[in-house]
Amino acid sequence: MMESREIQLKRRPVGTPAADDFAMVEVPVPAPAAGEVQVRNLWMAVDPAMRGRMSDAKSYIPPFELDAPMEGPAIGEVLASGDPGFAPGDLVFSRLGWREVFNAPASMLQQRDRKALPTQAWLCFAGMPGLTAYAGLIRIATLKPGDVVFVSAASGAVGSIACQIARNLGHKVIGSAGGAEKTAFLRDVLNVDAAIDYKAEPSLTKALAREVKAIGASGIDVYFDNVGGDHLQAALALANNFARFAICGMISQYNVTDAPTVPRNLTMLMTKRIRMEGYIALDHMDLEAAMVAQMTGWNAAGEMASAETVYDGIERALDAFHGLFTGANIGRTMVRLA
Amino acid sequence: MMESREIQLKRRPVGTPAADDFAMVEVPVPAPAAGEVQVRNLWMAVDPAMRGRMSDAKSYIPPFELDAPMEGPAIGEVLASGDPGFAPGDLVFSRLGWREVFNAPASMLQQRDRKALPTQAWLCFAGMPGLTAYAGLIRIATLKPGDVVFVSAASGAVGSIACQIARNLGHKVIGSAGGAEKTAFLRDVLNVDAAIDYKAEPSLTKALAREVKAIGASGIDVYFDNVGGDHLQAALALANNFARFAICGMISQYNVTDAPTVPRNLTMLMTKRIRMEGYIALDHMDLEAAMVAQMTGWNAAGEMASAETVYDGIERALDAFHGLFTGANIGRTMVRLA
Repeated sequence: MMESREIQLKRRPVGTPAADDFAMVEVPVPAPAAGEVQVRNLWMAVDPAMRGRMSDAKSYIPPFELDAPMEGPAIGEVLASGDPGFAPGDLVFSRLGWREVFNAPASMLQQRDRKALPTQAWLCFAGMPGLTAYAGLIRIATLKPGDVVFVSAASGAVGSIACQIARNLGHKVIGSAGGAEKTAFLRDVLNVDAAIDYKAEPSLTKALAREVKAIGASGIDVYFDNVGGDHLQAALALANNFARFAICGMISQYNVTDAPTVPRNLTMLMTKRIRMEGYIALDHMDLEAAMVAQMTGWNAAGEMASAETVYDGIERALDAFHGLFTGANIGRTMVRLA
Repeated sequence: MMESREIQLKRRPVGTPAADDFAMVEVPVPAPAAGEVQVRNLWMAVDPAMRGRMSDAKSYIPPFELDAPMEGPAIGEVLASGDPGFAPGDLVFSRLGWREVFNAPASMLQQRDRKALPTQAWLCFAGMPGLTAYAGLIRIATLKPGDVVFVSAASGAVGSIACQIARNLGHKVIGSAGGAEKTAFLRDVLNVDAAIDYKAEPSLTKALAREVKAIGASGIDVYFDNVGGDHLQAALALANNFARFAICGMISQYNVTDAPTVPRNLTMLMTKRIRMEGYIALDHMDLEAAMVAQMTGWNAAGEMASAETVYDGIERALDAFHGLFTGANIGRTMVRLA
């Protein structure tokens, strides 16, 4: 019988999750039953939304159960199969991360093409972050030729892909991130046209105005928002008429309990005829095949940079998760499990 | 030679416009030259946007000129014509309000059907307020069967028409207005399903939740916003998933210089996948013919109530304009000029 390790949620965290809220547990994994498949996870990804599922709050995804392994996107290989649709060696995507080896009904696994892309790309630019960036720009913001694109949290898992999609489609891209290391990454790896270190700018609106001018634009046409707050205010201030804002996240606002101080210029929506739309990638799974085809082509042409911060081993999975909140990580935060 | 009276802007008002900022001037009107048409205005309308044009601020419409008659929507009849496209007795729309009789190039006049509708309807439900309400609901909010519609400033020029369009199309409508007289108008004349007197409610969000429940709905699907601020916050709080907000105005925000205190729940855009879009009716003139046809049909069927506050005579035009800002007027504010 196989042995596996998994991270279980033992207690719902209050505030910052503490070590005692979790336990790494060794569990036996029997041979898969009929209709089941045994998988060894190769990579898992962590994301901030997992914090929400550790709590009991109502959301569009149910909370994690206590005394059970947590869940999250993972890519693994089939070790043994009790289902005719899967064979040893197959590469499979599941939402059964936070564990090394597991049996699952075949219906919970999705085949992935082993040769098309680097394995971990299925959790990054060809996975949900890729779909999130793609749906936001293409469907929600209805990106069109000539649009100038502004991306906040541009060094993050989704933002880094949004920058590359827009750039690969021929748009001028302005990215915002916090700190010199991240803005260097935006310029040198993602090849954006302009990078703003928001931590170094007394006024984000003035900084965006300066960079808009520097790239020879009159304003921004598309804003890919991961941040909200003062980034949203700057985007409203610099928007061209008929700009479209895809609201993917508003991380600056999640823990705000006081009255907001920004944005104070929402009336721009009207005078500039701006469309602002929130969305969740899960509603846009119909775009997945087109997104993967596009990403596969760009990857083959050397036009998709890997944007990942990698932790090694399931014993570092919680470090990886905590790393999301320190602001240190660049790109998708991944754990290599095998 | 005809004599006419007109209201000229003499000085750009600071704050609330004062009597000295304007002058009523008598002017002679000669016979129309070739290519010109002589018109006697029958009705003019005043609206809050005129305050903006009295100032020098940059906007999508240029400011009024000093020592010249102000402009605004008017409907009049042709007295004499130097242009083959117009004949005495024709009903014409122009943007040459604030004056009684005038000559204008034929290109500044548009024919209106004398028999289809009551004369002043061309400035109300078959005019720009009608187009604003229609474009906002039909194109911007993409109203669809079963949508529950919330309208703020529902007793106003545009809001009163938005309520009636939504009601005539079979939607449940919740309207908000300030004071018992206006909410009685919403219920008794506009036949909305629920009316909120926002001045009498300590929490607009609680009031909207109560009325949503009272009409047997789970939330609102469309918000027609004239107000912004706490109305927008309540609409975000009570929105169903995939709600659409047409941002027509944000009158609560125009004079706000401090940091805003509301809305503090913009993250709802994302969790509820809300689309919020600002617009200006002038961008949607292509819908005018469809709107007029729809309104003409409803009017013939007795399904469009007149929503007007009428002042008599050009000498009362400034009173009419001031009345816009006291909150006393219901529906479109009109001046009968002849």
